[in-house]
Amino acid sequence: MIDPVFLDTPLYRCEALEPGLGCAVSIKLETANPVRSFKGRGTELVASLLAGNGSRAAVCASAGNLGQALAWSGRGRGLDVTVVASRHATVAKLDRIRALGARLELVDGDHELARERAADIARHDGIRLVEDSLDIETCEGAATIGLELVDAAPSFDAVLIALGGGAMATGVGHVVKALAPDVEVICVQPLGAPAMTHSWRRRRVVTTDSADTIADGVAGRCPIPAVLDDLLLVADDAVLVKEESIIAGMRMLLDHAGLVVEPSAALGVAAILEDRDRFAGRHVVSIVCGSNVDVDAYHRWVGAAAI
Amino acid sequence: MIDPVFLDTPLYRCEALEPGLGCAVSIKLETANPVRSFKGRGTELVASLLAGNGSRAAVCASAGNLGQALAWSGRGRGLDVTVVASRHATVAKLDRIRALGARLELVDGDHELARERAADIARHDGIRLVEDSLDIETCEGAATIGLELVDAAPSFDAVLIALGGGAMATGVGHVVKALAPDVEVICVQPLGAPAMTHSWRRRRVVTTDSADTIADGVAGRCPIPAVLDDLLLVADDAVLVKEESIIAGMRMLLDHAGLVVEPSAALGVAAILEDRDRFAGRHVVSIVCGSNVDVDAYHRWVGAAAI
Repeated sequence: MIDPVFLDTPLYRCEALEPGLGCAVSIKLETANPVRSFKGRGTELVASLLAGNGSRAAVCASAGNLGQALAWSGRGRGLDVTVVASRHATVAKLDRIRALGARLELVDGDHELARERAADIARHDGIRLVEDSLDIETCEGAATIGLELVDAAPSFDAVLIALGGGAMATGVGHVVKALAPDVEVICVQPLGAPAMTHSWRRRRVVTTDSADTIADGVAGRCPIPAVLDDLLLVADDAVLVKEESIIAGMRMLLDHAGLVVEPSAALGVAAILEDRDRFAGRHVVSIVCGSNVDVDAYHRWVGAAAI
Repeated sequence: MIDPVFLDTPLYRCEALEPGLGCAVSIKLETANPVRSFKGRGTELVASLLAGNGSRAAVCASAGNLGQALAWSGRGRGLDVTVVASRHATVAKLDRIRALGARLELVDGDHELARERAADIARHDGIRLVEDSLDIETCEGAATIGLELVDAAPSFDAVLIALGGGAMATGVGHVVKALAPDVEVICVQPLGAPAMTHSWRRRRVVTTDSADTIADGVAGRCPIPAVLDDLLLVADDAVLVKEESIIAGMRMLLDHAGLVVEPSAALGVAAILEDRDRFAGRHVVSIVCGSNVDVDAYHRWVGAAAI
């Protein structure tokens, strides 16, 4: 049900990164597709099922990547897609959502307010609410990354997964723990948006009053209880990283791998930078999950080190 | 014989580029692999055959990408690889050649002098000279890009191929003209390094006294007669583009596609920018053939537009 354009993404050793990181690093690259993130895997499932049962519309809240992906998947199947996003979301993401033909509604607040508004629209219009990380298709879509990792990687010791709502962590984590149980599943979240990591550590939902990180794709405050339950089953660890490490990770990926990544996609490299001893001599896979950045902000982040 | 890490590379519509280019554009991305260019496809064939017949060593001249790829392919098969390059070659490419364990010899001159020196070494040491574009494996490797294009692309009207020595143009061109003869095969070369294009137009080898372009990967001066013969059979056109168009193409690929590309890989977009009418409304595939750049130079090229 998933368009092949989102599947069998590149997975390759990136030796040029390794002197700086002190371990073997492979990249699973989820950015070379029409929406520049892994989210298409899940929205293809959602949209296929909706089209199959005769649905005509869907709505989601999004920091930008899910919205783009749902817009893309819905357009190809004749679905009217509405995306609710924060007015402060990454402009490039909002522009692409509009360009893909979705209706975009902005809220004066953060992602959690967008989630509330999307739920209101779904109730009012009687249409499907696509809830990232809660809806099983969004996790199953991400799980196909795990299948590809387990199939293709010769052998790796750990996989680093950006942790936001939890779709990628639970989807990939479930597959990896089922098929390659010795591989350590490590979730990485920004210190500035630590709600799910705190929840995982305390084994109960912990919310935060605010989120403050450049990693817009993972900047939630209110973990979903059912997703936390899943995460507790599959994650071996959840770690928090500083903003400066995220930026350093973005720079390293640009300078040594030639990859433009959005902040969320640099969380894995940031985690290695903050704890080299933990990874020394091991083979680590980092999922580069998205590359949707505002160009000016990107240049500000990566510029200083490069010039 | 080709490691799968080089095959089945991403091919996807890049709609964010399209308003600026006035046509439908698909990207065939050859940069998400251990050597960040398409050259591994060919060197895998070379190294497999050499290892199969008991050879222990090989030498090539390279602007940097072939050398990296041969170093990578040779390392995995126990071959001693020597790469001869210009002292003025892209530093990042030379660094990677060394890091991959090849012996690197620099010459005080351009790529044509490196070719002469590599031939001398091959004769003296009695080892295989890998001649890019002349040796059939280098063309057959590139031809696998063509097979993937013809297999996967729903329908496209033209393919834009960077033209240097001619391996990619003849390899891809041969497959495309054989299996999808209606697709226009357009080779693109910098105005500052036009030898092969002039040769194609006059149907005889034309050399130039100098090459002056940032597109180091295609900066040859002395076309190989046998390669020109092949190119005359498969290319529908060969066009020359300005340096400023190459830079504009690099910026567009960064700003709208999130792709870091080396100058040679922006030749296709440059060709569209210089002749929008020709491509208006058509579906064009551009092969993004490499991403090995010196970071400082790259920032200089793309910086002005972005900030």
